[in-house]
Amino acid sequence: MEGFRYVHRQVVVLRDLDGFGHVNNAVYLTYLENARVAYLKEVVGYETLEEIGNIMASVTLNFREALGFEDALEIGVRTTRIGSKSFGLAHEIRTADGRLAAEATTVQVTFDVLGRASIPVPDRWRSLLSEYDGLDAGPA
Amino acid sequence: MEGFRYVHRQVVVLRDLDGFGHVNNAVYLTYLENARVAYLKEVVGYETLEEIGNIMASVTLNFREALGFEDALEIGVRTTRIGSKSFGLAHEIRTADGRLAAEATTVQVTFDVLGRASIPVPDRWRSLLSEYDGLDAGPA
Amino acid sequence: MEGFRYVHRQVVVLRDLDGFGHVNNAVYLTYLENARVAYLKEVVGYETLEEIGNIMASVTLNFREALGFEDALEIGVRTTRIGSKSFGLAHEIRTADGRLAAEATTVQVTFDVLGRASIPVPDRWRSLLSEYDGLDAGPA
Amino acid sequence: MEGFRYVHRQVVVLRDLDGFGHVNNAVYLTYLENARVAYLKEVVGYETLEEIGNIMASVTLNFREALGFEDALEIGVRTTRIGSKSFGLAHEIRTADGRLAAEATTVQVTFDVLGRASIPVPDRWRSLLSEYDGLDAGPA
Repeated sequence: MEGFRYVHRQVVVLRDLDGFGHVNNAVYLTYLENARVAYLKEVVGYETLEEIGNIMASVTLNFREALGFEDALEIGVRTTRIGSKSFGLAHEIRTADGRLAAEATTVQVTFDVLGRASIPVPDRWRSLLSEYDGLDAGPA
Repeated sequence: MEGFRYVHRQVVVLRDLDGFGHVNNAVYLTYLENARVAYLKEVVGYETLEEIGNIMASVTLNFREALGFEDALEIGVRTTRIGSKSFGLAHEIRTADGRLAAEATTVQVTFDVLGRASIPVPDRWRSLLSEYDGLDAGPA
Repeated sequence: MEGFRYVHRQVVVLRDLDGFGHVNNAVYLTYLENARVAYLKEVVGYETLEEIGNIMASVTLNFREALGFEDALEIGVRTTRIGSKSFGLAHEIRTADGRLAAEATTVQVTFDVLGRASIPVPDRWRSLLSEYDGLDAGPA
Repeated sequence: MEGFRYVHRQVVVLRDLDGFGHVNNAVYLTYLENARVAYLKEVVGYETLEEIGNIMASVTLNFREALGFEDALEIGVRTTRIGSKSFGLAHEIRTADGRLAAEATTVQVTFDVLGRASIPVPDRWRSLLSEYDGLDAGPA
């Protein structure tokens, strides 16, 4: 999948469909969540739910084509920007035969789950995300 | 709704449907959950999520008729039995015009959410549930 | 709810929560869908699923504050723009005590469900939506 | 997985969890649905949604142990009985390390999706399901 080093794979199941036989809009956010969690596990690493440590601040999602039952999806994830207390991700959702189903960008705020407060992006996250996706990390 | 003192009301929304335009099986369990939580709030009372204090041990669910978009549902809940560490509930799901869509029974185990262990049914629950639904509570 | 003539009301249920006890991101899109469907029923009118006749082309969603169990929500919907084959909606999600939980804008494409093709915004929709929300409908 | 020739595999994702961090009850029915659809594809075969041709008439589900984030699940499916217009399935849901999370039985009614009516179990289904799971198919 061009432009994405990390690609998450998932197949559309019955419960993802709406009454018209297409994947419901809300399910696209679940696909993005699954891909993002897998990406962060791969790049930053975590063992428990509490360590995931980021929450979505905003999302923009453009729907290009409907998805149907048993479509095999490829969901690309890429860090595009790392700020002081947040980082930006870009996504594409494509079918295995290359059709573009959706494009999305999200802003993720780093978060101390137990302390229930936003925190600066940890240096470790900054360097791992930057290195993985070829960003200029800037001064630590 | 005959046979049920407590009736929860809910309307079918788009996300509840499957690809055939009917309410998906799994959503019936969500309807039962919503009705059960509302019933326990009414009868036993709780203020927070942690106080809900019971988990489902088993469910038997008979589907009688399909449900569709915007059906107005009445979901009856009734305690049928109170044991030492569990209690039994009976349910019916009907449309507002009286069609029987599903019948269900569940066994609920009383649970200390913070301690993560099953506990005896609290005397307070026992007497409130018994009184509400006209059970013989037995010796407290 | 200031700025919105149409406000849909819905209460957060258990199934809406994620593993951290807050409403999951994807569920916000279901809240918007429920509000949008109710708004279109009120303003444009429809009897069946097939008549709903619009699909989401894009959404931008800003999360302002977490939502929790049993929060009573007010979800405002307002048409902001009517184009040739699409119209724009603005949304706010607030708790009953006035906290702003999320803001969103969506673009909806008018669609012939049976013919599976986008269609021009029907004149009837154009005039009803414009009138309801005080837009200048322009030349029909 | 002992006692099951067909085993479907699926990993618990964030959206499957409830507010206590465990998999929500209703999601177990989605796991069973995913496993059943995959099993029928393997054994009976289908190309489109309309060919799936069966609906759930009843389910009994016993919850044995809670499931958590990223648990790798094995979901066994086995035909236990084939009647004139329905067939019975047995299920177990286990974690990859062998813990039993749930047991279930369902009754599935064969159904003509387009005609919206129950139909006799097709001879082809009868012989394929019987052969796969070693049932005595009886006289066709």
